[in-house]
Order: sequence, then structure tokens, then C-alpha cells
Amino acid sequence: MGEMKRIGILTSGGDCAGLNAIIRAVVCRAAGGYGWKVMGIRQATQGLMSDPPQIMALEPDKVDHLLTMGGTILGTTNKGDPFAFPMPDGTVRDRSEDIIAGYRQLGLDAIIGIGGDGSLAILRRIAQQGDLNLVAIPKTIDNDIGITENSIGFDTAVNIATEALDRLHFTAASHSRVMILEVMGRDAGHIAISAGIAGGADVVLIPEIAYTLENVCQQIQERQSQGKNYCLIVVSEAVCTPDGETVTNTNALGQCRLGGIGQHLADQISACIGAETRVTVLGHTQRGGIPSPLDRLTASAFGVAAVELIAEGLYDRMVTWQNRQVVSVPIAEAISYYRAVDPNGTLVKTARGLGICLGD
Amino acid sequence: MGEMKRIGILTSGGDCAGLNAIIRAVVCRAAGGYGWKVMGIRQATQGLMSDPPQIMALEPDKVDHLLTMGGTILGTTNKGDPFAFPMPDGTVRDRSEDIIAGYRQLGLDAIIGIGGDGSLAILRRIAQQGDLNLVAIPKTIDNDIGITENSIGFDTAVNIATEALDRLHFTAASHSRVMILEVMGRDAGHIAISAGIAGGADVVLIPEIAYTLENVCQQIQERQSQGKNYCLIVVSEAVCTPDGETVTNTNALGQCRLGGIGQHLADQISACIGAETRVTVLGHTQRGGIPSPLDRLTASAFGVAAVELIAEGLYDRMVTWQNRQVVSVPIAEAISYYRAVDPNGTLVKTARGLGICLGD
Amino acid sequence: MGEMKRIGILTSGGDCAGLNAIIRAVVCRAAGGYGWKVMGIRQATQGLMSDPPQIMALEPDKVDHLLTMGGTILGTTNKGDPFAFPMPDGTVRDRSEDIIAGYRQLGLDAIIGIGGDGSLAILRRIAQQGDLNLVAIPKTIDNDIGITENSIGFDTAVNIATEALDRLHFTAASHSRVMILEVMGRDAGHIAISAGIAGGADVVLIPEIAYTLENVCQQIQERQSQGKNYCLIVVSEAVCTPDGETVTNTNALGQCRLGGIGQHLADQISACIGAETRVTVLGHTQRGGIPSPLDRLTASAFGVAAVELIAEGLYDRMVTWQNRQVVSVPIAEAISYYRAVDPNGTLVKTARGLGICLGD
Amino acid sequence: MGEMKRIGILTSGGDCAGLNAIIRAVVCRAAGGYGWKVMGIRQATQGLMSDPPQIMALEPDKVDHLLTMGGTILGTTNKGDPFAFPMPDGTVRDRSEDIIAGYRQLGLDAIIGIGGDGSLAILRRIAQQGDLNLVAIPKTIDNDIGITENSIGFDTAVNIATEALDRLHFTAASHSRVMILEVMGRDAGHIAISAGIAGGADVVLIPEIAYTLENVCQQIQERQSQGKNYCLIVVSEAVCTPDGETVTNTNALGQCRLGGIGQHLADQISACIGAETRVTVLGHTQRGGIPSPLDRLTASAFGVAAVELIAEGLYDRMVTWQNRQVVSVPIAEAISYYRAVDPNGTLVKTARGLGICLGD
Repeated sequence: MGEMKRIGILTSGGDCAGLNAIIRAVVCRAAGGYGWKVMGIRQATQGLMSDPPQIMALEPDKVDHLLTMGGTILGTTNKGDPFAFPMPDGTVRDRSEDIIAGYRQLGLDAIIGIGGDGSLAILRRIAQQGDLNLVAIPKTIDNDIGITENSIGFDTAVNIATEALDRLHFTAASHSRVMILEVMGRDAGHIAISAGIAGGADVVLIPEIAYTLENVCQQIQERQSQGKNYCLIVVSEAVCTPDGETVTNTNALGQCRLGGIGQHLADQISACIGAETRVTVLGHTQRGGIPSPLDRLTASAFGVAAVELIAEGLYDRMVTWQNRQVVSVPIAEAISYYRAVDPNGTLVKTARGLGICLGD
Repeated sequence: MGEMKRIGILTSGGDCAGLNAIIRAVVCRAAGGYGWKVMGIRQATQGLMSDPPQIMALEPDKVDHLLTMGGTILGTTNKGDPFAFPMPDGTVRDRSEDIIAGYRQLGLDAIIGIGGDGSLAILRRIAQQGDLNLVAIPKTIDNDIGITENSIGFDTAVNIATEALDRLHFTAASHSRVMILEVMGRDAGHIAISAGIAGGADVVLIPEIAYTLENVCQQIQERQSQGKNYCLIVVSEAVCTPDGETVTNTNALGQCRLGGIGQHLADQISACIGAETRVTVLGHTQRGGIPSPLDRLTASAFGVAAVELIAEGLYDRMVTWQNRQVVSVPIAEAISYYRAVDPNGTLVKTARGLGICLGD
Repeated sequence: MGEMKRIGILTSGGDCAGLNAIIRAVVCRAAGGYGWKVMGIRQATQGLMSDPPQIMALEPDKVDHLLTMGGTILGTTNKGDPFAFPMPDGTVRDRSEDIIAGYRQLGLDAIIGIGGDGSLAILRRIAQQGDLNLVAIPKTIDNDIGITENSIGFDTAVNIATEALDRLHFTAASHSRVMILEVMGRDAGHIAISAGIAGGADVVLIPEIAYTLENVCQQIQERQSQGKNYCLIVVSEAVCTPDGETVTNTNALGQCRLGGIGQHLADQISACIGAETRVTVLGHTQRGGIPSPLDRLTASAFGVAAVELIAEGLYDRMVTWQNRQVVSVPIAEAISYYRAVDPNGTLVKTARGLGICLGD
Repeated sequence: MGEMKRIGILTSGGDCAGLNAIIRAVVCRAAGGYGWKVMGIRQATQGLMSDPPQIMALEPDKVDHLLTMGGTILGTTNKGDPFAFPMPDGTVRDRSEDIIAGYRQLGLDAIIGIGGDGSLAILRRIAQQGDLNLVAIPKTIDNDIGITENSIGFDTAVNIATEALDRLHFTAASHSRVMILEVMGRDAGHIAISAGIAGGADVVLIPEIAYTLENVCQQIQERQSQGKNYCLIVVSEAVCTPDGETVTNTNALGQCRLGGIGQHLADQISACIGAETRVTVLGHTQRGGIPSPLDRLTASAFGVAAVELIAEGLYDRMVTWQNRQVVSVPIAEAISYYRAVDPNGTLVKTARGLGICLGD
């Protein structure tokens, strides 16, 4: 089984369904298979900054339940660039050396970092700086890491948004209403357009395509003229207004409040054509819950494959999903390819082909 | 099979899952069994006000798919008391005689009205005035019609709210957040407390029990002191602030906007103890979707039983669910018993017994 | 909080969804609320027979996850009447005194027994014999304990069977097939008739009503004559053939094999009218999985209420669900009322009203 | 919008979830977008054999509900090679010219054939013979069409099998049982291994890897020695016994009966090590029900893309899913690449890495 190793694993950035399934697979293969020691690092890189590092022992006979559990037992954080980390006294500090020190203190041979492109870029910079052995696994409900067909969490998020549309469909029809569903996805419209197609939406607004209020209202009215007195609209959280403004709403502490683009759009439509509108904000339900079988399968494949890379001494690489196989690529290459929704791609063509208004 | 009859059926008030299952059962029994003619009346009493009445023929071989379909194919409305109906010219008018005229024009022998206590009280008043033969079926996600253990739509709504809590649980834990779920239920906290118990909430705020911000924040902090860095809060839409104020948010047309008690509470908690909070508003997803098996079963039983009442010539009665049987009672009696959450009842005792903070 | 107590809890008979939710509620209230010590007894009464007794410590901060977990962490068994317990040497022995001794050895003040009517009758006999303080909680997917409207596990089992029918519906129609779903329920047809109504079955065969093959085939052919070339049949596992014979199939060790009444019926129908038939046997999926919100709610209410009975010193009682409240009754009374499906009750009337063939 | 066309669409072979979603997308794009006439052909090629052809008009305003409906409203059949079609008189006949005649009689410009590799090979042969304009869409829950990453119906089937494992997990643990789940998939083990990984199975037996009873029993016993007294086994329907025999069970009419490899394996295990085993046969529930969002998305993309191929006059091609895009390839090439589970591929490596016994 080769030499004994000590490896760390951490989850970084926004949580999503399937993170725990990755952790389970890593532990099964590394500890159960190779007999290595696996240390779970708490709260992403913050667990390595601490002295002593904040860790959680991960034993193969105690991870079975993680396959179906949402979130991450390691905790995560999307606060704080380690190179400019906000300190309690209000200053910011470069904590990268503290993280490297934590890695050394734990005596790690390698570390598996699970994150989105932002988190992974930071992890790689630290790994380069400290000569750490890093293997990366892509997760993000936004599915914007272009090198991999699926990132962990995306399929589950689309399922949840689609299910909400399924539910809104008949209540919208019963009351002749315009129903707006605001979904996550940050700068990419993948959740919105995927769920919009799968859930039978009439309008899908994504950050990649600018909308006008006239086009949206025209779609509502055209449907009415065909005897369809209701309309389902999906809008991605980062969609800007036709004036190019971002609609955000945060409190004094910088925390997100309700009342973003979804409600803004409802107000616009209501004022413009008087249609009765209602807004649903799925919020963090999209990140939560039992991972879909596809997310569990991909998470398991990624976890096992990441351990194999370490066993082969192949570092600075990310596992990806391509043509139903796991393929590893250099991290630098992996995170250089951002995937927005392609305005000429299959999803947009499909949406237009189905008569869905994309706002343009 | 007795004499041939013509019966009407209408759905009134807010829609919910299971309405179509009732319609199917009525058609199966009345048209398929007795050979009667069943006319579906559109948009609640508005379909009877119109001249000619707006109806939809309902044939037994075309209703199979209604068993699992959300909403109501008849449409509904919760706008407009027929005794003070808002006319296009801005005036209000008593349209009750128009409704009675519609009933006569259709040559109806009886009408099945499906609604909540408000709608049914109005329907009964019209029926009394016009000597119409009315049989009532209770539906409401609020489950506030006290005479029946279950109203159609309630079980499905609780399932959807519980599922949202299941999803929020692990994302809350992963990010050490306070997650607030705002649910429907109008003046009764049944959805909130049922889903709160079933979904493992830490705090449940219902209209029947006044809360203080201190109590809520104390629960959050007590959990933190036990090493549980997150908190799930369910709040019912009609909960008032500790000052006794209703937090509502409507636009110029009187339509509900986001930003009610859920966001208000989040702002309070965030300002008071700095906890990171996020809000999810399920909105109309709670009314929508495939009815639960229990709602389908009860809907089917109510539909069949309502037809049997007509066959026996028993009017002015409502079917109810008691001890796993359908029992019919006079409508007047049925709607006189409003059921709020009993502060000394099983649900509250259970919540307290589980350590759930009810805000008091 | 009164005196410190030591209480035991055990799960007996076939497992079902919601058992763990009961355990959680008991621990939350007894240990978390009253500060008592709660000991989980393994494998039903077998855990008490062992010397030392086989137990599991149950702490309030480690039971949160039990709310949604299927099965029972305590394990269960439906093998072996303790009064005639099969010993490894092939003999049978009365082990009741060993169970009483186990109770004494643990220093228990009371024990909460979760089971169906059979298990609870045995537990009560032991409790009477040894003067043990017993409180009972009803669970059974069969829902045949007549004193309580709901037993834990029933709602979930009906949901699973209904979902299977939802899935079979369209594949049956696509291929013009007769689809037979064999469900559990032992001597009572509650799962079959509830799921059959909720899932839109065309034929429902239950142990309470004898069927003839002619009636079943006639229903299939009548549907065909109406242009409906498929048929959904639900059959309860304990249905006898028209000759009054039980169709069972066990191996040399007495374990259930496939090929019971479902396949028997398929063979009969196929031979009689040549219809293409397929059989699905849900088996133990009906016992498993995440409990429904209703099962979780009732389980939580039962668990808390059982602890309150102990706090009040009220023993030899069972908690029941009546009119949305928990009511306690003497165990002897509770288990004396077996509930079969009432041939004149609401469920049967509803099924007949919808045109479902019950085989008679 | 180009010239007016008349196109046909048919579904062939075993049904699955997502067929209706394809039909909807084709109608939306062809009729709703291009204004073409779309004729649905009933019962696969049998609808074309009939004189007159058996068709169903498909209008864009009547297909909305097909997005989430399982099965196929056109009906299908997997009986009868048209080149050797079983006639009522017991003879077989080449009906290919009748099918071509039907196409001509309907005045079709093109036909969209939805099927698996077998059905599509036959359709292509007929199209070649009659110079028909054929576009193909791949569907099969077996996912054995190697040119496309996803065939319609596969994701939904995996979801259903995984969900069954989720349910069996805790009931198996509660009773210390071996639970066997028999799944579909014909000669390919994709459903079994995908669901096995996603559902946390301990043993997965697929047709591509021969098993020995000893290996299976050893896995069960190794788990027992680790204190895990239960075992989940997934077995694909076409797995042969270690002696290389197929375990099938058909009645006098050639219809499948229960009692295939699942029960055979249970009997073997039970006899060999005395373990208590139970079998669940999901049967046609795997084909049924609401398609998953991924199947709906892919189905929609395939349907739109197939219409675009016709608009461009590109025939004899199949749409496929590759790297999140639809790509069209010649049918001959598409069906020449059969995809079994690769014994050296990601799925098998993942299963082994997780400690799943594959029987070898």
C-alpha cells in the first residue's frame, strides 16, 4: 500500500450539497484503503491559521452517514482573503504564512482543497508560496468552472429551483398571477436557465443577457392574448436592471437582505402593466439538503481520484468531470477558464426554441 | 341511480394543493357514478356573476390527471366580497343576486363550494338568501377550520416548509448562520409550529404567542454556548413585532412585497447580537405542487362524500375529517369554530418539550 | 425539575420510519429537560435479557440527527417471544425473568416501549409480572392499533407506496400493461387502500374483502372498452386467493421470498385474459427512509408525552393521537381494539365512489 | 420561417421518463416556432403500418403539461421487429414497406424517431430502404448508447434506484439484514453501479464483471467483523450466476415474472452463511414518474435540436449530449458504439476505492 501519509482536507467558499460526500470518499480511500491518516481542517484556511490548527479526526468507520448529508462537517467560510485577512482589531493582515505554518505543524504530506475558482486560486497561491502539495476538487452551485462539466452542488441546486417552479406553476395559473423566482448563481446564469428550461418557465433572466422591461411585459401580454393568464419568471440574483444597476440590499453589517432583483422586477412589472405579481426567494435552500444522486456520484469519484493523485505524487492538479470520466488537469489551467452561459450555446438555443423570453 | 341532477362546483379563496383532487372525486362520483351533469364554475363566484355564467364541462373520462395536479383548473379568486364587489368603475356593488341568477340560469340542483371559513361564510349567506342547495368542503393551508382535523392543502404545505428546513439545517451549520424561514398561515401558526417541530427548528414564532427579541437572541446564544453555532428560526407571516405592530409591505396596487416579519426579525437579530442571518421566503411554493398522499386521500373522501350528501338531499352541510372518517356537520356550526394554535395543546407542549423557543 | 430518574427506551417489532424521531424526543425531554438519565436498550427485549444488559447511552446533544433518520439506532427484532424464546441449542425458554432482571440491574425507574400491538402486549405482560413501570408508544406501518388515529410509520409507508403508483401510472399507459404493486400491511389493508386511493389505482385488493378473479378481469376489460388500455392494481401482502389460500413463499430458513400474492395474481390475470402484466414488490423500502413530516411530528409529540407520563408517575398507559392531540389510555384498552379496514367506512366508500374495484 | 413542413414523431422501445418532454420540445419548436404541422405517430412503427396510419395531432398550446409527465402519450412498443412482424395468425411478415407507405400517406417531410440503439437501427434501416428523412434522439434508461453522455431516462432511473437504497439502508441496519435491490439496465450495469455508489451500497453486481458467491459472502462477513451487521447489495437484472447461467423467469406467454437474479442471490447467500436476506424488485417504477430536471433539460435540448436539423435539411443524424452541448452525429456512427461499464473506468475505480465489492 505504499508509505504511510498524513493528508489534510478542507472545504472553502460557499457550502453546497455534496461536500460531505467528497469528504467521505477521501476518507474511505485514503484511510480505509491506503491506511493514511486524514485530518479534517475546520473552517477552511482559518483552521490552519490557528495555533494549534483546528482539526477533526476522520476515521473510515465514522463517515458512512456523510454520503447523504448536506453541507460540510468541517465548516467553511467565504469571509476573508487570507492575504488580507480581517483581524478582530479592524486591521487586515497577510495570514498566508500562518496557514503554511499550520500545514507544517500538522506534518501534512498533502492537502485536498475543495472550493470554487476563487477559493482554489487563493489556495494555489498559498501552496506555491509554501511548496505545499495541493490537489483541488471543484465545487460550486454556480457551475462556472469551465474545465469541468459538473461542479459539486450544481445538480442539486438546479433540482431545488426546478421543484420550486413545478410548485409555482399551478398556483400561478389558479390565480392568474405573475410568479417570480429569484435564484442563486452569482455572475453566471446556469442555475436560472437550467431550472427555467426544466421547470417550464416563460421568462428567464440571466446576467449574460441584458433585458428590457418592455420585452418581459410583452411576453406576459402575449401569453394573455393566447389565453394563458399567468407567467413564470426566473431571475438570477446578479441580473442588473436595464439601467445597468445592480440591485442589492445589505444591512449595516454587510449582510444580504431580501429585496434584490426579484422584488425590483415585480415592482416594475406591476407598475407597468398592473399584473398581480408575487416573489419567492429560495435563498440558501438551494445550497442545502440531501445531494442528488449525480452530485453524490461525482463527489465520490472526485474524492477517490484526488486520493489517487496523491498516491501517485501528482500535485497542483484539479480533478474534473469530462465525458463521464474523471480527468485531472493543472489547477492553473482549470481556473483560467470561466464558464458563463454561452449566448450561442445549447442552453440559450433550447430556451429560445421553446419560446422562453430571455429578456432581449 | 335516482333522478338526474345538475350540480355545480367552485373553488374559492386562496388556492392550495388538493383542490383538483376534490374536483376529480366529485366528477367521478356524480357524473361517473350517478350519471349527473357536473358543471365547473370558473373563478369562484365570479363565474356565476357573469352573464352567461362562465363554466367548464367536467366529464369523468377527462379528470384522471387531476388527482396529482396542484391548484385548481377552475381558477379561483380571493378578491372581492360579492356583497361589496369592486366594479371596474371604482364603485362597489352587491352582486349576490347576480350569483343566484347564475345558479338559476344553469339550472343547478345543488352546488359544491370549496373554500376556507371566510369564503364558505359568504357562500352560505348567498345560499340562504337565494335558497340554493349548498354543500361545503373545507380547504385551507392554514388549517384553522376547527371542526375538521384536516383541511385540504395543509399537509402539503407543512411538507414543503419542513423540506425547506431540512435543507437549511446543514447550510446553516456549515456557515455558522442564523437562518430564518418565513412561512404562510395567516392568523394561525399551524404551518409554522408543525413544520418547526418536524423540521427541527430552534425557534418558532407564531401569532398566538408574543415574542421578545431578548428571548430569541438568548436562545441563539445559549446554543452557541453549547457549541451549536447556528440556529433555525421559523416565523409565521402574521407574527407581530414585540411592539404589537404588523410588518407588512405592499406596493401601490396593494400587492404583497417581500420584506415582512422574516426580514424584520433578521435585522433585529443582526443588530442586537451581530449574528449573520439569512432569510428565505417560501411564498406561494407552499400552495403549489403535487398534493401529498394524505391531501389526495382526504380530498377524494371529501369529494365523494359531498356528492353523497346531495344524493341524500342533505344541504347546508360541510364534510369534515374526524377520527379517520368523513363526518358532515351544519356549515354554520362548522365555521363558527376557529382553531388557533392552542397555547396549552399538544403542539405547544411538544415544542417546549423539545427545547424549542417560542419567543415567550 | 423533580427527582432524578433513570429510564430505559426500547424499540420492538418491525422497524419503520419515525422510531428514531421518538427516541430523540424522549432524550430531549427526559435528559435535556428533566435532567434524567436515558438508557437505550439494544435489540428490543433481547438487550435486557443479556447479562450485562446491552445498552447505549443517549445524550441530548447527540440526538439531533435522529429526527430525520429512518430505522432505529437501538436495533429491533421481531423474532422471538420472550416467553418462548428460541435458544441457540434449539430449545425454547421463558426469558421473561431475565428481562425483569435486566431492568433491575440497570436501576430503571421506568421504561418506554415502542411497538405494535403484539410487541406491546408482550411488554405489558412482562411489566405486570415484574411490576415494571411501562409507558407505551404505538408504531406500525400497518396502522391497525385502533385506539390511535396514527401509528408512527404509517404515513411514510403510504407515501412510498403512493409514489410508486405515481411512477407506474405512465409506464403502464405507455405500454398498455397491467401493473401490480404488492404492498405491506399484514392483516390490515390500510396501506393498500390509502395508497390505492391516493395513487389513482383501478383495483385495490385488501385482506378484509374477498376478491374473485372474474371481478378483477372485468374491471380491466371495462377500462379497455373505455379506451383505457392499462390498469393499476394494488394488492396487500396478506390477501388470500379466491380459494382462501395464503400465498407465501419462504426458504428453508423461514425467510420471506418473492413470489407471493402479487405474482400469483399476475399469473392468474395473464392466463385468464392474456393481458401483459408486471409486478413490483416494494418490500422493505416501505419501512425505510426519511420519515414524513407528519410521522416526525407525531413521533415528537408521542416522545415528549411519554416522558410527561413518567414525570407524573402514570404507568401502564399508551400515548395515542386523537383529534390532533395526544391522549393517553390504559395499554390494556389500547391494544384490545384492532382496526381492520372497515368495509362500511370512509375509505371503502371513497374507493367505491371513485370507481375502484375492490374485487368483490 | 422557411417552407411549411409536415413532420412525424414516434417513440419506440421501452418507455422512460422524459419522452413526453422531448415531444413537447419538438412541438414547441416545429409547430410553435416554424409553424410546421407535427403528427404524433402511435405505438411506434405500428402506427405507420396501419391503414390509415394511427396518429395524434400535436398542437403547441396543448403540450405544456408534457414537460413533467412520465411515459409517452404516443404509446410505444418493444414487441415486434417490423422486418419480421408477428401477425395475429401466428405468421411473421416483413412490414417495412407498410411503414414506408404510412410515411408517404401522411405526406411527411421528415420523421423524428426516439429510441434506444436497437429501435434506432431498425428505424434507420427502414429510412434507408424508403429514402425517408430520419432524425434520431437517444433514450434509454440503460445509458448504453456510447456516443452520448446521457440518454433520456437514465438520470431519473438512477435517482429512483438510489432513493430505494436510501430507504433500505436504515431498515437493513435496524434488523441486521442483507438487503438486495434488483435494478434494470439490461446488458449494461450503469444503473446498478451509479445507484450503488450514490446510494452507499456495499456490494454491486453488474453484468460486466463476473461474481463469485464466496466474494459476496466474504464482504458480508467482513462487515460483520467490523461491527456492521447489515449489507446492501445492488444487482443488475442481467447478471448471470457464477455458473454463467441467466436467471430469468417467464410465464407461458413469455412475460417476465419475479424471481430472477435478485431472489437467486438471496437464496444463495441465505443458504451459504445463514444471513437473513430480503429482496426488493423496483421493476417498472424505474421507468416511470416525473423526469428529473436533468432529463427534462436534455430532453428539451434534444427536441429543439432535432427540429433544427430538419430545418437545415440534415438527416440520418442523431442528436447527442457532449460536454453540456448538443452535438449531432451520423446515426450509423452513433449506434455502432455500445457502452458497457468500463472495468477500468471511473465508475469501477470509484466503487473499488470506496470499498464496494464488485463480486470479483
